[in-house]
Amino acid sequence: MKKFVNDPQRFVPEMLEGIALANPDTLKYVPEYNLIMRADAPRDDKVSIVQGSGSGHEPAHVMVVGKGMLDAACPGDVFAAPPMDYVYETTKRLATPKGVLLIVNNYTGDRMAFDMGREMAESEGIKVAVLKVDDDVAVKDSTYTVGRRGVAGNFFVMKAVGAAAEQGADLEEVVRIGEKVNSVTRTMGVALTACTPPSKGSPLFELGDDEIEFGVGIHGEPGRERRKLERADRIVDDLLDAIVPDLPYRSGDRVALMVNGLGGTPISELYILFRRAYQVLAEKGITVGRSYVNEYCTSLDMAGASITLVRLDDEIEALLDAPAEVAIRVF
Amino acid sequence: MKKFVNDPQRFVPEMLEGIALANPDTLKYVPEYNLIMRADAPRDDKVSIVQGSGSGHEPAHVMVVGKGMLDAACPGDVFAAPPMDYVYETTKRLATPKGVLLIVNNYTGDRMAFDMGREMAESEGIKVAVLKVDDDVAVKDSTYTVGRRGVAGNFFVMKAVGAAAEQGADLEEVVRIGEKVNSVTRTMGVALTACTPPSKGSPLFELGDDEIEFGVGIHGEPGRERRKLERADRIVDDLLDAIVPDLPYRSGDRVALMVNGLGGTPISELYILFRRAYQVLAEKGITVGRSYVNEYCTSLDMAGASITLVRLDDEIEALLDAPAEVAIRVF
Repeated sequence: MKKFVNDPQRFVPEMLEGIALANPDTLKYVPEYNLIMRADAPRDDKVSIVQGSGSGHEPAHVMVVGKGMLDAACPGDVFAAPPMDYVYETTKRLATPKGVLLIVNNYTGDRMAFDMGREMAESEGIKVAVLKVDDDVAVKDSTYTVGRRGVAGNFFVMKAVGAAAEQGADLEEVVRIGEKVNSVTRTMGVALTACTPPSKGSPLFELGDDEIEFGVGIHGEPGRERRKLERADRIVDDLLDAIVPDLPYRSGDRVALMVNGLGGTPISELYILFRRAYQVLAEKGITVGRSYVNEYCTSLDMAGASITLVRLDDEIEALLDAPAEVAIRVF
Repeated sequence: MKKFVNDPQRFVPEMLEGIALANPDTLKYVPEYNLIMRADAPRDDKVSIVQGSGSGHEPAHVMVVGKGMLDAACPGDVFAAPPMDYVYETTKRLATPKGVLLIVNNYTGDRMAFDMGREMAESEGIKVAVLKVDDDVAVKDSTYTVGRRGVAGNFFVMKAVGAAAEQGADLEEVVRIGEKVNSVTRTMGVALTACTPPSKGSPLFELGDDEIEFGVGIHGEPGRERRKLERADRIVDDLLDAIVPDLPYRSGDRVALMVNGLGGTPISELYILFRRAYQVLAEKGITVGRSYVNEYCTSLDMAGASITLVRLDDEIEALLDAPAEVAIRVF
């Protein structure tokens, strides 16, 4: 798969430089630590919200730093957790009297980096909490996790805690909200193609011309099964058959429905998936109260998509409704 | 290339249904004419702004209907102009005392449909103007055009006339603004891969493993030359070497810089292109005052990108700054 790249080793820093150049008034870039932060952070009147992970999932998380979302993103190299000292240095720079919340998708490498970074910061008296996101229902344990993986559902966690922090909530309250949103969020994805990391230059795994990976992870790791490509509606039905009973989401529930593109799938196809998901949920008596169709958490250039459901209540919906600013411009 | 699709013949209507379901409060869908319109349109106090084209370029144009942007989109099937009666019926439904502006990217099929639709509407006393966008510098005449093609630069035209119409400008003034923005906008694109129309199921053209199409059109039509894949920076340099002298953009100019993904290229790579473009323009004394990095006008699942420059002045910048609402949710 051909890519726009110069030196594969410089893929992440060049992308981060681009983000900083595109947002000179609102973002600050600290190259030593891959750190993208709000220009006005840290602010003493709020908890700082930070998320990190490997790169390659953009817009997550470096493109969603902004007022009402993240105060900073702390990415590693492509599909690699940030080093613990990046986490530590980021936490130090974002420290406020109200504390720092580190959100981490449940991957073992990321959790280790964030736990150790947290310990280093705490040893200097910084108030820190780590919040784990594990919304992926595909597998119980996986190639790179103990427990479930954290994937695109983390956008709802980021948005809710970002809004709460902006409104002045303290660290304990922000953690409560984040855990609550995570607890009502479920995701599962499917890959139509593999992805190509810039440094490898060839697909990360093999998928036949008529095959899909059902329940794929956002690094291309295996899911539930390899199966034949089917009609879009059938794929949606099977994803929802895995997601809906898991919480479970029940008749009478009001939900947010996200269809997330994995990088190589155009938005036209995402709306075809959304349509079916909306209809199937309606048949089950589940109302789609909020809709999200776009790329949020990708896997480089992988063709594929994931579906996320969030059970809404007044508190969560108000937080999702709050204003937010990010680096990406729809127009 | 595998796709999320049910019946290829239902690709466009299913996508449009999805868009309507995701935006029940703000959009209305009229299936007979592939019409997506604002729920509150037509409004007697403003010119209605409409753009159409073949489908397959999403988010253009069906996902950018909303306050301050389009009042309606009138798409055809994938890569096919809408039938003239779609244009006519759309124009009739959007008619207001202040008139209707039909924006059309310069492709011969689209221009014919929109000119004939305009004539049909005018014969019923509806006030209509057609505005042609032709921002693509790659080729003078092309496979499907007389004159230059209209591509992603049309987003700046839509945004400016959408804002002006919302502020109450009359039809003549809206046309003046649209023509002005088009006259200072230049674009060129490059394809790394072909795209796969749903009804064909295989790539529209052949591109070798190490080849790119330099100056590609948004339907995969040939550009200036087929060449070997190069470093990202070199590709940007060559695109700007075609774009900058064309207006020309000069030292001291302030511009909007758009890096538009063609569908299959992840946003991480778009920022690598943006970085270089920003730097090269800075070396030329051209200031990037506004940045746009995302997918705007795509070519189905084609991997590739285009670069657009718009020379800014106070009038254009104020119109680009005005609030706008569209179907797509960043978060």
